[in-house]
Amino acid sequence: MTPAPAALPARTRLHLYDTTLRDGQQTQGVQFSALEKTRIAAALDAIGIDYIEGGWPGANPTDSEFFDSRPQTRATFSAFGMTKRSGRSAENDDVLAAVLNANTPAVCLVGKAHEFHVTTALGIPLDENLDNIRASIAHLVAQGREALFDAEHFFDGYRANPAYALDCLHAAHGAGARWIVLCDTNGGTLPAEIGRITAEVIAAGIPGDRLGIHCHDDTGNAVAGSLAAVDAGARQIQGTLNGLGERCGNANLTTLIPTLLLKPPYAGRYETGITREALAGLTRLSRMLDDILNRVPLRAAPYVGASAFAHKAGLHASAILKDPSTYEHVDPALVGNDRVIPMSNQAGQSNLRARLVAAGLAVAPGDPALARILDAVKAREDQGYAYDGAQASFELVARRELGLLPRYFEVERYRVTVERRHQSGRAVSLSEAVVVVRIGGQTMLSVSESQDETGADRGPVNALWTALAKDLGPYQCLIDDMKLVDFKVRITQGGTEAVTRVIIDSEDAAGHRWSTVGVSPNIVDASFEALLDAVIWKLARDGATLP
Amino acid sequence: MTPAPAALPARTRLHLYDTTLRDGQQTQGVQFSALEKTRIAAALDAIGIDYIEGGWPGANPTDSEFFDSRPQTRATFSAFGMTKRSGRSAENDDVLAAVLNANTPAVCLVGKAHEFHVTTALGIPLDENLDNIRASIAHLVAQGREALFDAEHFFDGYRANPAYALDCLHAAHGAGARWIVLCDTNGGTLPAEIGRITAEVIAAGIPGDRLGIHCHDDTGNAVAGSLAAVDAGARQIQGTLNGLGERCGNANLTTLIPTLLLKPPYAGRYETGITREALAGLTRLSRMLDDILNRVPLRAAPYVGASAFAHKAGLHASAILKDPSTYEHVDPALVGNDRVIPMSNQAGQSNLRARLVAAGLAVAPGDPALARILDAVKAREDQGYAYDGAQASFELVARRELGLLPRYFEVERYRVTVERRHQSGRAVSLSEAVVVVRIGGQTMLSVSESQDETGADRGPVNALWTALAKDLGPYQCLIDDMKLVDFKVRITQGGTEAVTRVIIDSEDAAGHRWSTVGVSPNIVDASFEALLDAVIWKLARDGATLP
Repeated sequence: MTPAPAALPARTRLHLYDTTLRDGQQTQGVQFSALEKTRIAAALDAIGIDYIEGGWPGANPTDSEFFDSRPQTRATFSAFGMTKRSGRSAENDDVLAAVLNANTPAVCLVGKAHEFHVTTALGIPLDENLDNIRASIAHLVAQGREALFDAEHFFDGYRANPAYALDCLHAAHGAGARWIVLCDTNGGTLPAEIGRITAEVIAAGIPGDRLGIHCHDDTGNAVAGSLAAVDAGARQIQGTLNGLGERCGNANLTTLIPTLLLKPPYAGRYETGITREALAGLTRLSRMLDDILNRVPLRAAPYVGASAFAHKAGLHASAILKDPSTYEHVDPALVGNDRVIPMSNQAGQSNLRARLVAAGLAVAPGDPALARILDAVKAREDQGYAYDGAQASFELVARRELGLLPRYFEVERYRVTVERRHQSGRAVSLSEAVVVVRIGGQTMLSVSESQDETGADRGPVNALWTALAKDLGPYQCLIDDMKLVDFKVRITQGGTEAVTRVIIDSEDAAGHRWSTVGVSPNIVDASFEALLDAVIWKLARDGATLP
Repeated sequence: MTPAPAALPARTRLHLYDTTLRDGQQTQGVQFSALEKTRIAAALDAIGIDYIEGGWPGANPTDSEFFDSRPQTRATFSAFGMTKRSGRSAENDDVLAAVLNANTPAVCLVGKAHEFHVTTALGIPLDENLDNIRASIAHLVAQGREALFDAEHFFDGYRANPAYALDCLHAAHGAGARWIVLCDTNGGTLPAEIGRITAEVIAAGIPGDRLGIHCHDDTGNAVAGSLAAVDAGARQIQGTLNGLGERCGNANLTTLIPTLLLKPPYAGRYETGITREALAGLTRLSRMLDDILNRVPLRAAPYVGASAFAHKAGLHASAILKDPSTYEHVDPALVGNDRVIPMSNQAGQSNLRARLVAAGLAVAPGDPALARILDAVKAREDQGYAYDGAQASFELVARRELGLLPRYFEVERYRVTVERRHQSGRAVSLSEAVVVVRIGGQTMLSVSESQDETGADRGPVNALWTALAKDLGPYQCLIDDMKLVDFKVRITQGGTEAVTRVIIDSEDAAGHRWSTVGVSPNIVDASFEALLDAVIWKLARDGATLP
């Protein structure tokens, strides 16, 4: 395990430039609202990012709205745009004017650095492109802005015509750009070449402390390419949270940040604006972004993924129990993540015991219940259940085998109906559920329609939940503060048949979350099973007793 | 764009060793059946992988069953195990015997190469571990097997005690191991250090053509680390399809293979067992594995992801339409992937026209319908619809705006009921649907229960589908060969409310697939909308006319 330095020594400063709100918005299926951009900018500022690129003012209504009311940040706020077009002065370019009108302290302009793109895409003489770069950067400086130049297609351009690619950089540098950013726009340049070319750029007279790197992940090397540029002397890294971005995404800052802070040779040799305390909020930051985007967090994500410190192999798991450094390169707590010893057909009893202990269920080694629990879990996994993401349901399986789960109540039957018809022209739908529960000697029959405050039909699962939660007699007080916060559905294989797997996340008033799973060929049955588990786990956790 | 060499020149041979079926099985939530392993092994063999590691014979019933009936392959089949334990001879180690009994031509044994693990985990003297390595490898060779030694924790071990780590390699090499594999077991070693240490190993007398590299992705550098080892002289790469594997996964062969075949300096300098023709099957192979595992394919995956060649930015998209090489580092066809110009709020009319053309809907530039379609798509995206993954529903939106969609039929109303009760002891559930459809002047009322051949209840969506598909009068013949092959559900944001988004994949007898989307707070409504779109798209594609 990497030893954690007591404090970050003041060494060479690396500057982190986040473009989640601009290049990250190029991710397929991603479309931020102005409000979401404000939340993300605040989170980036809180963790200690140096630059926040908010978008392209004037390019679309959302970005314009966002810049009109952009949050106050400690980080340097940056607006993105492009170098002025030919045939007009920088002062008279309306696209450039829209960018400057956002009044951000920093402005980043993308311009061509590849002769093929100048002649093909722009269709102008090579010198004219140099003039456009010079004039645009000079205009930013004259306006008192910190000027950045994104040299588009720089590495491809350098391969094709190194002299011209360097001329583009010198044009920006000579005009007073604070940062000249080497962009591997198509993501095809491999790390060794990024390192070599970056060193040649510095040798050609662009100082490393003026150089930035902007990588894309089209060969799976965006992180390595960024590190190679730093090794060669570049001092600004551009990237996005969770590696969002056009095509395969940008360099993933969520991966780069812990590597720079925790791993030699970076830890100790460099410093960033991010403190060790802030680093512990990284996993939360990553998950928050996925929440905002309604994306399922990537389990295998380095450092912050739910599986990043999950030890499935029996041999690994038992060694981890002795000494975590045997199979972990860093301590998960440093990035705010957790060690996981998941259940699986490969899980040995030692894994199981560790997980039961984590759940507050102490079992002696060799207790025959351990084997019974493993068998029960295995049998249910064969039916399509998955417990890696449904810890609460796993605990219920274990509690049953351990005889630690009272039968609080029985559901005798339920019926749910969804009806859709036309009513005075427009289609309306209505869901109604009846649930019959037996508690002690008593039978309780509850009926509920599914309608939210707006009167809209929330569907059969919601109707079942409201009916079930309407009257649980003596337990009612324990579930009154429960609410369903997420609902995930997967079609999966149960034995030979395709079945529906439903995972429900519930939350109590204290904000504590738990996840339960239900499996059935019938999505309503699967949902109801997960609902029941959620209620029963809450009753067990709160120590409910039989009436 | 990387120029495609006419044929792969015979250069230095790199050997690809796939461990999807062994280390890949350590992925959280992954559990292969023997049958699935057989399918995957056949696919790996077909694409031209050199070595297929099938698992650990004796470690679990699945692996034992798989090796008992392992498929015949051109690739060298390998069984995984560990070096013999202390206190017994290699001949008398039952764990090692179980591995050899699988009778594979190659056997890969993992052993310690890090003094800390020898003394802590094994608790034996350092020399004894060397003896165990020597004796185990010699035993494999004596049995006529191709012997591989996985040097566990090699890089961490080399940092701690280079002399001892090298002694472990020499022990295996001296005993006749064909391959000595440098494993970065904890995934914490960065590419530059992997390259440096690999070079030092070769300088210490282990020939590069005997060296393999085994990386994990805990810092997001598994691919770069593997390339760094090759650059230093290693000639075998171990990895997995789609980067499956313990924690953050192994080096992703799906990413490495096209880089080695298509990108300089690898293309031309090295050759593998994979032909250009086989490479074109890579995307299909990657998706097949996800299908088997019921995993949602990673859109941003390099080369094979659905977004890998998706050009969302308006500027990129219009340049791509002129010349794909402007924003693509390789041609997607080389890996069997497709260029995508997705719909999105940022989509310009040029993107839209390109997508309509792809759908066989030619529209003149400047046609006012283009703006109307963009508005309609935008309005529906605001409600929670997503068309990136539902091309058929997108086409229906466009057809409506273009006046190219007859109103084949109307659904007047439907009702679906799910009931669960106890019947002679066991819980049974039943779903029943009634659908009333108006075609021409006629009203058709269909009712259906949801039961499969086994009599199991398949749930409300299935009941609605069977009722709807029961009698569509004049159109019946066109939908008889339709079946639902996948059903995905997401909770997402529609305006201010959380809504359910359902995406349904349908298939016809010819195996043609199409995807449709439905959105509603009510999961049954959302499903029914997607079902209707699926039917209507089929009718439109087959040129159905009004009765």
